[in-house]
Amino acid sequence: MLKLYSFGPGANSLKPMLTLHEKGLDYEQVLLDPRKFEHHSDWFKKINPRGQVPALDDRGHIITESTVICEYLEDEWPTEVKLRPDASWERADMRVWTKWVDEYFCWCVSTIGWHRYVGNMVKGLSDEEFEEKVKNIPVVEQQVKWRRAREGFPQEMLDEEMRKISYSVRKLDDHLRDHEWLVPSMYTLADICNFSIANGMQHGYPELVNKEDTPGLLRWIEQINERPAAKKMFADVPREIRHEDAKK
Amino acid sequence: MLKLYSFGPGANSLKPMLTLHEKGLDYEQVLLDPRKFEHHSDWFKKINPRGQVPALDDRGHIITESTVICEYLEDEWPTEVKLRPDASWERADMRVWTKWVDEYFCWCVSTIGWHRYVGNMVKGLSDEEFEEKVKNIPVVEQQVKWRRAREGFPQEMLDEEMRKISYSVRKLDDHLRDHEWLVPSMYTLADICNFSIANGMQHGYPELVNKEDTPGLLRWIEQINERPAAKKMFADVPREIRHEDAKK
Repeated sequence: MLKLYSFGPGANSLKPMLTLHEKGLDYEQVLLDPRKFEHHSDWFKKINPRGQVPALDDRGHIITESTVICEYLEDEWPTEVKLRPDASWERADMRVWTKWVDEYFCWCVSTIGWHRYVGNMVKGLSDEEFEEKVKNIPVVEQQVKWRRAREGFPQEMLDEEMRKISYSVRKLDDHLRDHEWLVPSMYTLADICNFSIANGMQHGYPELVNKEDTPGLLRWIEQINERPAAKKMFADVPREIRHEDAKK
Repeated sequence: MLKLYSFGPGANSLKPMLTLHEKGLDYEQVLLDPRKFEHHSDWFKKINPRGQVPALDDRGHIITESTVICEYLEDEWPTEVKLRPDASWERADMRVWTKWVDEYFCWCVSTIGWHRYVGNMVKGLSDEEFEEKVKNIPVVEQQVKWRRAREGFPQEMLDEEMRKISYSVRKLDDHLRDHEWLVPSMYTLADICNFSIANGMQHGYPELVNKEDTPGLLRWIEQINERPAAKKMFADVPREIRHEDAKK
């Protein structure tokens, strides 16, 4: 039995979750609560020593890193639904897009997300309580990020990340105006991995993602949301961050 | 006929070059000269609009991004020499390592490399000449990096990158003391991609990579250098940056 440890259906957690749903694979969903720092708890660090979700347990093999999990599912659990092209150059095209989301797009969106939500989440803690939490984080760069979120990110960094978000949104829209999917011939892991970061930006960044400025990107976001697998997933798995909260 | 556009056998250019040699595939090598900014020239941007090497031309299909090219070669050109495991979980393990080198290890080493070499390369140019070069760089973040290399990277950034390099070297050595290869059961693209960044650190960072502190890492670097494919590659393809220069 497949078992997926993750947060709710957003960002990196969404990638394998949507892949599993698209492929119609049965799996057990173990939701961790980021507000309780459950991913930094001892029990979970026994599963992933880096204290990061998502992580997939497949008959005792632990697979980590969201994009790696998605390709793993294609390798190990081939289904009639194919989310990876057969042609090698299309496969390469897919990987250029999943690499881009992992190295660029997800980071700028993540910093602003941390600025908006995580900052508020940890500001209520006393210094002592906060240090107690940080101590449990195994990755140094993550410790730095938690501290920055609490102190407030430098404005210069926020401006730079917003520039990167604008660029990313433009890049996706330029492509999606002329193509149904990122790899033009079919819906692939490239769409799933980029959608996982882009979905919700029409609410969180309405000044950037809207009908006038990014019709291609918006069409694609809506089109993926309308897929039966996505509908089922969003109906089945609760989200922990709601757009209403995001606007506060 | 396969055609590889690249710099000499170091860093990202080394990844597909060593993969091609290990697989024994015939290919045409087109060496670009970074000192002449050839990768930002119009002729090359027609091949890769991002102005980055390596890029592979396979019968008119252009494949970019070094790690993606390596997996492409495994997908499209299967050979008796296999550089990717058959078992899905080992494949995932391989991709966690190649993702790590792309997202973490290569960046810290690259910044220090730019600080040491590229800075000197562009300091001789007049402001006008330099701006003329920067104008041709299609990726904004690369423009920023060229400017930083000319002005000098902030000391704080250099310190942070050196911290990451120390961490990376430790991580590799910890693993390689107990395992012959990164994916324990076989030599894979994980080794090739990490070796491409690590090779030469025994000369460029002797205080970090040496027999006493990192015996596992050093053994692995030497072992890969001794492979017939690596020996043939280094004999055939000239390097543009020599260790003697690196020490100046």
